Amino acid sequence: MDKSMGNILLLDFRKVVYKTSKLLLVYLFSKFQSFIGEESVAAGAPSILTDNPTWIIDPIDGTTNFVHRFPFVSVSIGFTVKKEIEFGIVYSCIEDKMYTAQRGKGAFCNGVPIKVSGQEDISRSLVLTEMGFRKEPEHFHMMLANIKTILTIPVHGIRSPGSAAINMCLVASGSADAYYHMGIHCWDMAGGAAIVTEAGGVIMDISGGPFDLMSRRLIVASSRTIAERIAKEITEFPVGRDDTEGR
Amino acid sequence: MDKSMGNILLLDFRKVVYKTSKLLLVYLFSKFQSFIGEESVAAGAPSILTDNPTWIIDPIDGTTNFVHRFPFVSVSIGFTVKKEIEFGIVYSCIEDKMYTAQRGKGAFCNGVPIKVSGQEDISRSLVLTEMGFRKEPEHFHMMLANIKTILTIPVHGIRSPGSAAINMCLVASGSADAYYHMGIHCWDMAGGAAIVTEAGGVIMDISGGPFDLMSRRLIVASSRTIAERIAKEITEFPVGRDDTEGR
Repeated sequence: MDKSMGNILLLDFRKVVYKTSKLLLVYLFSKFQSFIGEESVAAGAPSILTDNPTWIIDPIDGTTNFVHRFPFVSVSIGFTVKKEIEFGIVYSCIEDKMYTAQRGKGAFCNGVPIKVSGQEDISRSLVLTEMGFRKEPEHFHMMLANIKTILTIPVHGIRSPGSAAINMCLVASGSADAYYHMGIHCWDMAGGAAIVTEAGGVIMDISGGPFDLMSRRLIVASSRTIAERIAKEITEFPVGRDDTEGR
Repeated sequence: MDKSMGNILLLDFRKVVYKTSKLLLVYLFSKFQSFIGEESVAAGAPSILTDNPTWIIDPIDGTTNFVHRFPFVSVSIGFTVKKEIEFGIVYSCIEDKMYTAQRGKGAFCNGVPIKVSGQEDISRSLVLTEMGFRKEPEHFHMMLANIKTILTIPVHGIRSPGSAAINMCLVASGSADAYYHMGIHCWDMAGGAAIVTEAGGVIMDISGGPFDLMSRRLIVASSRTIAERIAKEITEFPVGRDDTEGR
């Protein structure tokens, strides 16, 4: 066997090893890790969060903004193990801000540590929420009534930037003091939840109870005082769950 | 007289010329040009727009955002002659975007020409407005009712970034399709009015009539169709004028 023939065989052997490894990795990856994402879930189908290591991904958070070139668009990635969020990444594409956080290791924006504002006084706070048309007249009315209630406290202002993940990062970095939302999805929240928690923020359910990633609702705030005040002020309306049929 | 003494006299003469010129320029500037700005007008005092060349300046548009480090803050400058806006400059400080426009010369962002989206269909549009607490319950109710009306059309969404001048530039650059506001001031509008007009946008009064810089209200849009539709849909409430006492 001449030298060139040996080289060809070696190349073929490398290709076989490469392809086998790739298949093995894909198998192991899909066998032992799960994925939940807006684009991977059929409309109305439930997203089941298991104990598996799970990637919860929104490739474009702020889709309407993206369509209109409105400058708040992000990629959101959260990673859970045994239903606990282990790390989160939110990349605000137009601003070129990469927010990252790992459980117990702090939160960062472009590598620089970030902290919530620490504001305790809701009357000195900037609050984020989103406004959308709702087919159920009663829910639509409640959404607007909640805005009126928050403005009447009064707060410094309400802003609606249009990307849930960025809203959470704005609270995490102290540029806003609170954000509340009903009708959001787990892929909008998973990345930001890690970031706002590691930045010293508070995350809870709209009811004031513990945050539930599949509940489609949340309050995040710079302090427990503000989060609890928002929970007390606003009226809940049903939005379904991500892990049940027909959400 | 030796050479060094001559130099000293020359320096002194230069200083005299410099100081005299400066005084003369300041005199001419204040004699033949006027200024209107949030910081130069006593609370409640009228701002009178004359035929004089007039600088209409807001050094910080989006003051609440500025206080909270929310990333939409701008410097807005408009220049009028015989009450017509000749040019406008809006610098969005955090985004580092310099919007400029001169009458008949087009609009630019960081030197690159910008255009409105050209959207004619309001149901495919992204609309900007601002929400604030109002002491008069009826006006507060109308402000929220207007948001409800616009969302019900329906539109793609409503965004509230918190800087009037930047809102106008977002419409000018096609990142939003309309912006309406009641309770705004001339220094919030003057710079942006030049930019949105030169970018091919439409600017009009809330009533659908001609835009009035001192009226404290405006609609800007990517097309006349959308501007007129908003004028038709929303309910006016009194906000006073910038050029009358007690605004």
